[in-house]
Amino acid sequence: MERFQLAVEAQDEAFIKESLEGVNHADISAFLDEFDAKDSKYVLDLLDTETAADIISGLDEDVREQFLTSFEPGEIAEFIDHLQTDDGADILYELPSKEREEVIYSMENEKKAHDILELLHYDEDVAGGLMAKELIKANLNWTIKQCIEEIRKQAENLDKIYAVYVVDNNDKLLGKVSLKKLILTRDDTKVGEIYEDDFVSVETFMPEEEVAAVIRKYDLDAVPVVNLKGQLVGRITNDDIIDVITELAEEERQLMSGITDDVEEDDSIWKLSKARLPWLMIGLGGGALAAFFIGFYEEEIILIPAMSFFIPLIMATGGNVGIQSSSIIVQSLANPGAFEENMGKRLFKSLLVSIVNGAVLALMVYFVVLGINSDETIARVVSIALFSVVLLSSFMGTITPLLLDRFDINPALASGPFITTANDLLGLLIYFGVASFLYQFS
Amino acid sequence: MERFQLAVEAQDEAFIKESLEGVNHADISAFLDEFDAKDSKYVLDLLDTETAADIISGLDEDVREQFLTSFEPGEIAEFIDHLQTDDGADILYELPSKEREEVIYSMENEKKAHDILELLHYDEDVAGGLMAKELIKANLNWTIKQCIEEIRKQAENLDKIYAVYVVDNNDKLLGKVSLKKLILTRDDTKVGEIYEDDFVSVETFMPEEEVAAVIRKYDLDAVPVVNLKGQLVGRITNDDIIDVITELAEEERQLMSGITDDVEEDDSIWKLSKARLPWLMIGLGGGALAAFFIGFYEEEIILIPAMSFFIPLIMATGGNVGIQSSSIIVQSLANPGAFEENMGKRLFKSLLVSIVNGAVLALMVYFVVLGINSDETIARVVSIALFSVVLLSSFMGTITPLLLDRFDINPALASGPFITTANDLLGLLIYFGVASFLYQFS
Repeated sequence: MERFQLAVEAQDEAFIKESLEGVNHADISAFLDEFDAKDSKYVLDLLDTETAADIISGLDEDVREQFLTSFEPGEIAEFIDHLQTDDGADILYELPSKEREEVIYSMENEKKAHDILELLHYDEDVAGGLMAKELIKANLNWTIKQCIEEIRKQAENLDKIYAVYVVDNNDKLLGKVSLKKLILTRDDTKVGEIYEDDFVSVETFMPEEEVAAVIRKYDLDAVPVVNLKGQLVGRITNDDIIDVITELAEEERQLMSGITDDVEEDDSIWKLSKARLPWLMIGLGGGALAAFFIGFYEEEIILIPAMSFFIPLIMATGGNVGIQSSSIIVQSLANPGAFEENMGKRLFKSLLVSIVNGAVLALMVYFVVLGINSDETIARVVSIALFSVVLLSSFMGTITPLLLDRFDINPALASGPFITTANDLLGLLIYFGVASFLYQFS
Repeated sequence: MERFQLAVEAQDEAFIKESLEGVNHADISAFLDEFDAKDSKYVLDLLDTETAADIISGLDEDVREQFLTSFEPGEIAEFIDHLQTDDGADILYELPSKEREEVIYSMENEKKAHDILELLHYDEDVAGGLMAKELIKANLNWTIKQCIEEIRKQAENLDKIYAVYVVDNNDKLLGKVSLKKLILTRDDTKVGEIYEDDFVSVETFMPEEEVAAVIRKYDLDAVPVVNLKGQLVGRITNDDIIDVITELAEEERQLMSGITDDVEEDDSIWKLSKARLPWLMIGLGGGALAAFFIGFYEEEIILIPAMSFFIPLIMATGGNVGIQSSSIIVQSLANPGAFEENMGKRLFKSLLVSIVNGAVLALMVYFVVLGINSDETIARVVSIALFSVVLLSSFMGTITPLLLDRFDINPALASGPFITTANDLLGLLIYFGVASFLYQFS
C-alpha cells in the first residue's frame, strides 16, 4: 500500500496500471477505500470508463459520496452509462438534487436514463428502490430460440441471469423459465408450454426487510417486482439482499448500543465522538434525574445507609431484564412465523417468564443481602423491589418494541440506552417506594 | 389453521391433501412449524417422499430435531436420498451419532451417502460444512455440448446451476463458465477456450463468516470450495450464506442481550426462563459485589449522603460508553477493510474519542451536580470520576472484543452483560476512590 501511495504521488502510471492489471474490481474498490478522493481520482482516470464505473460502484458509500464531489456531472453520467440501473440509482441518491438532474440529462443512454429516473421515484428502502430494470422478459408466445436471441441482445447489460420472466401482452407477469430449463429445452418449444406459473414475486412498495424475508424463506436467486396491476417492472437479485440484511444488522447493532449515524471505526475522531455523544447525554440526563430523585431520600439514607448499597444491583438487573425481553421480541419480529400471537398473549407470556425469573432472583437476593448486611428488613426491601423491577422491566422490554414496530419505527431502538435509562429510573422509583413503605410499617 | 388442526384430528385426508396442493413447500414448512411432531408426521405421511423431504428440510431446526425422533432411521434415509447433500448433512448433524450411522447405511443412493459422510467430517461452521457436493464439473477438454449433456444428466440432483466449473485431469479447479456464456457459445467450442480463469474460491477450512464476507464482497451467486491441493470438492450457494448471515446476526443479538441458547419467543416458558437466568444471576452477583464494596464507605455516606445520589449516573455512563466502544469494534471486525490497524493504534484512537466525550460529559455534569446539590466538592468528585470512567470503559470496551476475537471467541460477547457488570464495578471503584481522595484533601 505504501509503495502504491508513492507511485500515486510520483504519478508512476506504468506501475499503477501494471499492479491493478487483472485484479478483481471489488478488491480495487476496497483498496481505494483507504485512499483520499484526489489520489483515487488520479488512479481511476488511468483506467477505462467501464472498469472505473465498476470500481466506483463497489466503493464504500461514505468514501464514494466524498469522492464523487471531485467529478463533473458529465463524468458521473459516463460512469452511470456503464452501470446497471440499480447501481446507477444508488449513486444518484447520493448526489444533491440539482447535480442529480444534470447527470441524468448528460447520460448518453436515454433508455437507461429513463429507467433510472423511474427507480428514483421509489424510496430507497422498498422493493422499488432496490430493484434493477435489467431483466430478460419473454412473451408467452415466444419460442426458446427467441428467448436466447433476447439474452444475446441483452448480454452486455446484464451481469447475472437466473431466469427468463414470462409476461402476457399487457406485461403482466405470468411466471418464469429457469436458465437451466432453457438450456435443456428444444429451441422451437413455446415459452407458454414450459414456464412455471408457481412463482414468488414482490410488489414495488414492499419494505426491504420483507423482501429479504421472502428471498430467505424461498431460497431465491432473484425475485421479480410487479406494480399494483401485476405488471413486471424490475427484479431484485439476492446479492443486493445480502447487502440489505447486513445493513439492517448494522443498524440494529448501532441502535442497541446507542450510536447515532452510520459510523465506522475508521471515521474521524470528531465524527465518532459526535455519533456517540447524544446518547451519552441522554444517559447523563437520566443519571441526573436519578440523583435528583434519590436526593428526596437523603434523610432515610443517613439513617439506613445500606439502602444505597443496593442501588447498583436493582439498576443492573432491571437493565438486563429489559434488554433480554426486548431482544426476544425484536428477534421474533425479524423472523415472523406463520401465525403471530396478539399483543395481549405476548405480554402474558412474557409476564409468566418474568414471574419465574423474578421469583428465583428475589429468593437468591434475599439471602445475599442477609449475608452482606444482616438486617432482615433491608433484605425484604431489596427482594420485593427486585421482584417488582424484574416484572416491570420485562413488561417495558416487551411492550416497547411491539409499539415501536406498530408505528413503523425500528423495534431495536427498545434495546438501546433510551429505554435502559427509563428502566433505570423506574427501578429506582420502585426500590425507594418499597423501602419507604416497608420501613414505615416496620 | 384451526380448520386444518381439526382436519388432522379427524384424519380428513382429502381436505389436507387438497389444501396443500400447489402450495409452496417453504410455506408448508412454516405452517408445520406450528404443529406438534405427531400431527406433522401424519400430514407428511400423506405426501410423496420427495415433497415430504423438501418440507422437512425447510422446517425450523428446533422443530425438526424434535420431529425426526418420531421417524425410523430407514424413513429418514429415504428423505435424505431426495435432498441435496448439504441439506442432508444438516439433518444428520442433528441426530445422535448411532442413529446417524444407521441412516447413512440405510440410504439407497450410495454415491450420495458417501458424499454426505465426507461433508460430516467438517465442522458445521466452516466452508466444508456449508458446501454441497452437487455441482457441474467439466474437464478443460470438453466441448460445450458435453457440458450441456452433463447438466442434463445432473439436472434432477441440482436445484440451482450458475456456472460450470472447469478442472484439469487432476480435478484441480481452473475456472468457470457462466451459464449465460454457455447459452451464448457454439456447441462445438472447447471449454478450455472460453472459461474465465479470474475466479474466486474458498478453502474447506475457511470460517463461515469469512465465506460470507467473500460472497458479499464479490457479489457471488455461488463460490467453489477447494481443498489444500486446489482440487474442487464442493460449492456454496449464496442462499446458504443468507442463512449464515442471519444466524450470525441472531447470535450477536443474543450475546449482546445476555441470552444463552438459541431461544425464540414461541419456546416454552421454562426454556425462556432458563436461557435468561444465567446472565441475570451474573448481574446479580455483580450487584452483590457492588453492595459489598459500597458497604466499606458506609460512614462516608452517612456524612455525605449526596455521594450515593450519583451512583446511577456513574454506572449508566460507564455502561453506555463500554457498549458503544465494543460495538464499534465488533462492527469493524465484521467488515474488515483492506488494511487493518494494529491493536495499539486502535486503542489510541479510541482513547482520543473518549477524551473528547469524557471532557464534554465531565464539564456538563459539573454544572448539573452544582445545580442539584450546591456542594462544589461533590461536583468535582463526580466530574473527575465520570471523566475517568469514560476513559476506562472505553478502553475496556475496545480491548475486550479485540482480545476475544484473537482467541476466536465471538467479540459480540463484549457488548453483553458480563462486561457491563465488570464495567459497573470498575466505575464504582473509581467513583469512591476519587471521592475518598478528594475529601481527604479538602
